[in-house]
Amino acid sequence: MKVKVGIIGGSGYTGLELLRILRQHPSAEVHVMTSRALEGKKLYDVFPNMHGISNLTYLLPDDDKLYECDIVFFATPHGVAMNNAGLFLERNIKVVDLGADFRINDSKIWSNWYNMEHTEESLLNEAVYGQPEIYRETIKEARLIANPGCYPTAVLLALKPLLEKNLIDPSNIIADCKSGASGAGRNANQATLLCEITESFKPYGVSGHRHFPEIKQELESISECPVGLTFTPHLLPMSRGIEATIYADLVDSKADILACFENAYKNEEFVKILPEGVYPETRSVKSSNYCQISVQYVEHSNKLVIMSVIDNLGKGAAGQAIQNMNLMFGLNEQEGLLQMGLLP
Amino acid sequence: MKVKVGIIGGSGYTGLELLRILRQHPSAEVHVMTSRALEGKKLYDVFPNMHGISNLTYLLPDDDKLYECDIVFFATPHGVAMNNAGLFLERNIKVVDLGADFRINDSKIWSNWYNMEHTEESLLNEAVYGQPEIYRETIKEARLIANPGCYPTAVLLALKPLLEKNLIDPSNIIADCKSGASGAGRNANQATLLCEITESFKPYGVSGHRHFPEIKQELESISECPVGLTFTPHLLPMSRGIEATIYADLVDSKADILACFENAYKNEEFVKILPEGVYPETRSVKSSNYCQISVQYVEHSNKLVIMSVIDNLGKGAAGQAIQNMNLMFGLNEQEGLLQMGLLP
Amino acid sequence: MKVKVGIIGGSGYTGLELLRILRQHPSAEVHVMTSRALEGKKLYDVFPNMHGISNLTYLLPDDDKLYECDIVFFATPHGVAMNNAGLFLERNIKVVDLGADFRINDSKIWSNWYNMEHTEESLLNEAVYGQPEIYRETIKEARLIANPGCYPTAVLLALKPLLEKNLIDPSNIIADCKSGASGAGRNANQATLLCEITESFKPYGVSGHRHFPEIKQELESISECPVGLTFTPHLLPMSRGIEATIYADLVDSKADILACFENAYKNEEFVKILPEGVYPETRSVKSSNYCQISVQYVEHSNKLVIMSVIDNLGKGAAGQAIQNMNLMFGLNEQEGLLQMGLLP
Amino acid sequence: MKVKVGIIGGSGYTGLELLRILRQHPSAEVHVMTSRALEGKKLYDVFPNMHGISNLTYLLPDDDKLYECDIVFFATPHGVAMNNAGLFLERNIKVVDLGADFRINDSKIWSNWYNMEHTEESLLNEAVYGQPEIYRETIKEARLIANPGCYPTAVLLALKPLLEKNLIDPSNIIADCKSGASGAGRNANQATLLCEITESFKPYGVSGHRHFPEIKQELESISECPVGLTFTPHLLPMSRGIEATIYADLVDSKADILACFENAYKNEEFVKILPEGVYPETRSVKSSNYCQISVQYVEHSNKLVIMSVIDNLGKGAAGQAIQNMNLMFGLNEQEGLLQMGLLP
Repeated sequence: MKVKVGIIGGSGYTGLELLRILRQHPSAEVHVMTSRALEGKKLYDVFPNMHGISNLTYLLPDDDKLYECDIVFFATPHGVAMNNAGLFLERNIKVVDLGADFRINDSKIWSNWYNMEHTEESLLNEAVYGQPEIYRETIKEARLIANPGCYPTAVLLALKPLLEKNLIDPSNIIADCKSGASGAGRNANQATLLCEITESFKPYGVSGHRHFPEIKQELESISECPVGLTFTPHLLPMSRGIEATIYADLVDSKADILACFENAYKNEEFVKILPEGVYPETRSVKSSNYCQISVQYVEHSNKLVIMSVIDNLGKGAAGQAIQNMNLMFGLNEQEGLLQMGLLP
Repeated sequence: MKVKVGIIGGSGYTGLELLRILRQHPSAEVHVMTSRALEGKKLYDVFPNMHGISNLTYLLPDDDKLYECDIVFFATPHGVAMNNAGLFLERNIKVVDLGADFRINDSKIWSNWYNMEHTEESLLNEAVYGQPEIYRETIKEARLIANPGCYPTAVLLALKPLLEKNLIDPSNIIADCKSGASGAGRNANQATLLCEITESFKPYGVSGHRHFPEIKQELESISECPVGLTFTPHLLPMSRGIEATIYADLVDSKADILACFENAYKNEEFVKILPEGVYPETRSVKSSNYCQISVQYVEHSNKLVIMSVIDNLGKGAAGQAIQNMNLMFGLNEQEGLLQMGLLP
Repeated sequence: MKVKVGIIGGSGYTGLELLRILRQHPSAEVHVMTSRALEGKKLYDVFPNMHGISNLTYLLPDDDKLYECDIVFFATPHGVAMNNAGLFLERNIKVVDLGADFRINDSKIWSNWYNMEHTEESLLNEAVYGQPEIYRETIKEARLIANPGCYPTAVLLALKPLLEKNLIDPSNIIADCKSGASGAGRNANQATLLCEITESFKPYGVSGHRHFPEIKQELESISECPVGLTFTPHLLPMSRGIEATIYADLVDSKADILACFENAYKNEEFVKILPEGVYPETRSVKSSNYCQISVQYVEHSNKLVIMSVIDNLGKGAAGQAIQNMNLMFGLNEQEGLLQMGLLP
Repeated sequence: MKVKVGIIGGSGYTGLELLRILRQHPSAEVHVMTSRALEGKKLYDVFPNMHGISNLTYLLPDDDKLYECDIVFFATPHGVAMNNAGLFLERNIKVVDLGADFRINDSKIWSNWYNMEHTEESLLNEAVYGQPEIYRETIKEARLIANPGCYPTAVLLALKPLLEKNLIDPSNIIADCKSGASGAGRNANQATLLCEITESFKPYGVSGHRHFPEIKQELESISECPVGLTFTPHLLPMSRGIEATIYADLVDSKADILACFENAYKNEEFVKILPEGVYPETRSVKSSNYCQISVQYVEHSNKLVIMSVIDNLGKGAAGQAIQNMNLMFGLNEQEGLLQMGLLP
């Protein structure tokens, strides 16, 4: 018996990536796909790679067929999951929100960054932050998962081993991050036209980005002390991939940082620590659920540089969501997720 | 018991794509990977997506370990498979040549286009052209497969239904084809530097390209008459994908061409015929073994336009090679090959 | 005294390209820029390359300041120039329409393709098709120019020498054309998001494209007989550039085609004929007003292949418009237009 | 009388960019172009945008025709200019080295980073670092210019106003820099094939890059004290453009940083300071000699973020070289350099 999956908000890249991964998943299958705007259309009318592959039709997001599912994924803008997750939970249907509604524990902080009241404090308290490498055991018991943001995933995996061992100064961390354009979604938008971003590169959201409070919250949860974080996102002229270059001050310049990382992730299939002097490339994890991390101590300035790459739609969204689903249903955590990066 | 696979010439994109697909194949596994230039190196030293994924080491191409395989794939420049295939066949090891050595039946024509004597006429006679949609039954019995070229695969699938039903004039066929740069391989080459081809587009080989005699031979084999073909390849500023736009004169302008294609491929998983007015995009089949085909009759000029897309490394090389392997070993033809196109 | 230029519809890529070229023009200057949507904004608020370069503010398209100009360029969707050109002409202000309103001589054909009545038959009769290599002398006397479409420019320059010398069969011409995404404009549009078109290639408008009747009209004007044309546009994963690969049947296979082209264009600065065996690349003309053309006779199929490249925003739009302006004002035709292609 | 220019090492992108800019320069012209490897070839055989534009032939680098020049540009690998600059200086021919031979004042530091003895200490002492915004008056009198590296140009312009006013802590500066692939040159190289870097992003040289000592030297020259610098270069999947995101600690968080930058560069044509909240994009300066800079104070972490963009071949190489030439010959500093960024 396969896990029956519903995808709410299936018109974007995250919804499509869920479909793509689940097609290869031996123990789960997509049962319903919804989209208010695309109701009645076939998947292949929207995503041309689906011709002859799937005959599914988009339903409305209030279609009863969703209640036949074992789990629903919200691939929706913020505000949607918050107001609808309860309908599924009360029917014993598990929920993974790939949006931001349940990521920030403090509803006031959330409201400040997302310009909206948080209407579901109790669900917020129940939701588990879905980073398996940090919260695996809690995820297994959860009904409601807040799937992490893409930038936070790359940054948290890069800093967790250091902060939990108190190897760096938590007050001065810089995360210079770069993302492909698929992170900006699939809506018609002048700013993400090919002609506006190909052959160009730019920072954005420098004064403040919604992933900042999320990263800060989780870093402080690991370090158990306040964290001073500067986070700068940039837009890459490509579709998939995130790279984070992180700068930190080592507490003890003689610590064996590489060993620390290798040890921290030795049982984690989806986090690969690179050999000394080898730096990660986003292509290495494209279309996959993998994260690659490299560390470099820069002697002349006494800085530690940690570099981390993920696919923002893979480990940064749909891949991690399915990893969470596997855990929630007692499946093998790696099921459906072992494809390696697509190169070239 | 999994089929043991050897890959000879594993330093390029085709070898890597074989590795990537076989990682997902339930009934086959890579046993040996060879490269004269990379001997002793780990796969992950060469392909950064392999860190923590494979611990294989490149061996020399004459390593005895190859003889433990059930099948070897030659992913080598022309001339290599010709001289070495016999060593495997005589040990009852099957051979698929992803190069050009056994594609042209007439050794003189081959020599003219490849500037080299053909030294293995008997193997040439035995080799089967590995296009399953044309030669499926023969492939099942074959020991030695000439895996088709990338352009030929796109063009043959687009023309087969028309030529075998005598629906077009065979004397005036134009194939205007476009390929991503991965078709040019992974060797250091000024002409395929990013800075030389990004944001640009060009024709090449207009006066003659080695895939011309291969396409012509197979078209004439289908039509059983001489074919007048003009074939123009172009280079796209991207890595993966081939599109062929083919122009032909309809014999009977009232023929139901779409029905003809749908009928011809109704049992073929890997060839999808698009609805009327929908044209194929290379991204729809990226990283997959699928081909998408569309037909459009242009009334004002009485031309039939057939458009076909494949991934040159997938259905145009490694995917098709594994499809052939599946047939040769009596496996399910689709095993390991059902991933859909990666989009975006 | 510099020619005072007004640009109507300055929010798109064509308007910006006019600005960019005119900045280098010694005898003309931009006096007014209008945009209904951007009224009151500074140019640099819209185009970030203008910071510190221009202090111009967008005005409304009915601002009286336009009447101070010597010439206005319409860089607007079809329908706009038609209804407004007269206002300028009656004030002795010259007009160049970079849109389609005056390109098709027959208003019924125009209406069929553009789904709109043509309201200005008399202006249509007066308008001159602004291809200087064909209509130079008439352009010099014109008040109203229909600036050619981008595809038509590439195709006409490639076929003019052949048709005027009756060297090819006019009944069977195929133009397989490819364009960068800037041809689709700067409006927010899902179909031209980077993630939808990068690393992909596709045909579009195969059953009919608005440049078809324009090309056909001009080819028939040159050949003075009916022309059988098949025209297939494709979208390239890049921003600037058009390539046309054109197939024709030679009337006399012994004609010296290369000499014919060299002779036809020996006095044309902006059309360069390439040596035998050298094929054009779109990058060679990027950001310039040049067109490069190559011819190749394919003996085995008796086809002539003509290949032509332009920058769709340069010779295919703004560059050619300024070339027309130069002619209309008795300036040196090449003024401001001699920049060579930007490579890499 | 135009300045006669010789270009030594004209086979790469920097040499080509010199040619492209000088074609528009009213007071200088290219007299000789040399390349050992390309001797006897026409420029248009190597750079396809030159067909019909230039009839120059590559000469050998020891051709006497070089001695007819007023100035020679070395666009050569390090080590070449060092050994040959003297030949020109002694003939009263000025020299601009676009390579690295004269950038580092201390020959021992140079030798450590470039793995080569420095053979010309006296020329090293004479050479002027060619950053006009810092050393304009000295450049005017110089015979020998060390044209700055691309990364240094972007970083120095971003930090000069802060260091000379002592507004930041010089001991903790981080420069996270990103460059297009043209910075890696035009030699055949597997690592810069399109298929290796398109749709990917990676850090490189993290443990040490040759531009590090150059940046450090110049920062310390401005600040007149030791500087603690961490410099991380990254490779962008595009051809042209550098972005530097720089992190520094403000000494006085109430300082008006934007005013400081506006004031520092108010008379500099080629450095544009962006309004508050507007961040630079590399496309804004593509193909130009401009630099755009933005500053953002991040309150929650008390960091100052300075962002700077240039075209690595323009202001980062050939454009700046010609700016230096203009100064050395008493020409208008801006001649030939006022083209704005090419967008899209």
